[in-house]
Amino acid sequence: MKSLTEYLTFNTKSRRAFINITSQIEKLVRKSGIKEGLCLVNAMHITASVFINDNEHGLHNDYEKWLEHLAPHEPITQYEHNETGEDNADAHLKRQIMGREVVVAITDGDLDFGPWEQIFYGEFDGRRSKRVIVKIIGD
Amino acid sequence: MKSLTEYLTFNTKSRRAFINITSQIEKLVRKSGIKEGLCLVNAMHITASVFINDNEHGLHNDYEKWLEHLAPHEPITQYEHNETGEDNADAHLKRQIMGREVVVAITDGDLDFGPWEQIFYGEFDGRRSKRVIVKIIGD
Amino acid sequence: MKSLTEYLTFNTKSRRAFINITSQIEKLVRKSGIKEGLCLVNAMHITASVFINDNEHGLHNDYEKWLEHLAPHEPITQYEHNETGEDNADAHLKRQIMGREVVVAITDGDLDFGPWEQIFYGEFDGRRSKRVIVKIIGD
Repeated sequence: MKSLTEYLTFNTKSRRAFINITSQIEKLVRKSGIKEGLCLVNAMHITASVFINDNEHGLHNDYEKWLEHLAPHEPITQYEHNETGEDNADAHLKRQIMGREVVVAITDGDLDFGPWEQIFYGEFDGRRSKRVIVKIIGD
Repeated sequence: MKSLTEYLTFNTKSRRAFINITSQIEKLVRKSGIKEGLCLVNAMHITASVFINDNEHGLHNDYEKWLEHLAPHEPITQYEHNETGEDNADAHLKRQIMGREVVVAITDGDLDFGPWEQIFYGEFDGRRSKRVIVKIIGD
Repeated sequence: MKSLTEYLTFNTKSRRAFINITSQIEKLVRKSGIKEGLCLVNAMHITASVFINDNEHGLHNDYEKWLEHLAPHEPITQYEHNETGEDNADAHLKRQIMGREVVVAITDGDLDFGPWEQIFYGEFDGRRSKRVIVKIIGD
């Protein structure tokens, strides 16, 4: 069994952002030399997500609006977590909806994706350096 | 390390549907000959889900009603994504709640499941052909 | 390829609870002797979750309140599933938000975690014995 471990770092200018990381993951799959296996990609921070969906700007705006409706940032006093001095309780909730991780099949040396699948980093409490791990195992 | 890759195809008559795919996955696990490993099952389309829950029709109706409450289909003009000519923005949101994928342990040649675990394909924008990938790795 | 399979059992006194299981998982990773691989941890019951987030009591109270808002337990007659004699339909919904499973990278013999990542068992219909499976594969 072969494996590859790599870390990506993000530091978004805005509190919330969606970043397409598909091509970075594809390069790592090729670097690994693994032909058949699994590729785990997960946020290492608990106010961020890695998820798979459409690379369409309007949809990302819909996600932003929808997540803000389901778990509003303001008023920050509505969350007990924010009594610790944080203001990011909503980001912990939003990340549960969008998920921490994706596991992707590797077939014949590439991500085995449907026609519209793209991998995104979802940031809900940015403006600081945060990491994503890519772990690939297989043969 | 051994591996098996298979694709299932679904074309539901209704826009939304839940289909129990457990027995199809069990057959593929046995076909793989893998005794200890991991089985990834994921929707290859971004308006569909694969998830594990109860094989109980009333609960599926509860999911349908609940998802429609959290991310209503109508009015379709409430979503920016639908300005592209689509009417399925709600399906992209519903799929985030239900999830893209499951990873299941394989122990002694079978899915290592609790008493009520069943695998479902969740369709939120059907009436066309869509695929699910099954990737099994192990020994 | 090496593998390890273990089961943890929980029986919470309250209907809902969050239990930090990180140290138990870390011990199993070391017991496995696996240096590079993947660790799957999932609830084997469909009204419970395994998820990764912050070990902060106020945040757990926020999750409890938020999940109860998104999928209220009462009135139990609002759910068709409860016509079967159950009163736990809300628990099946809450578990979809929080997720069934986590997959964690193992690097150099340990869980490859960010600074605040902790693994929790989330119970939404407790007061009875329920299991979690830990499946580790790698080299």
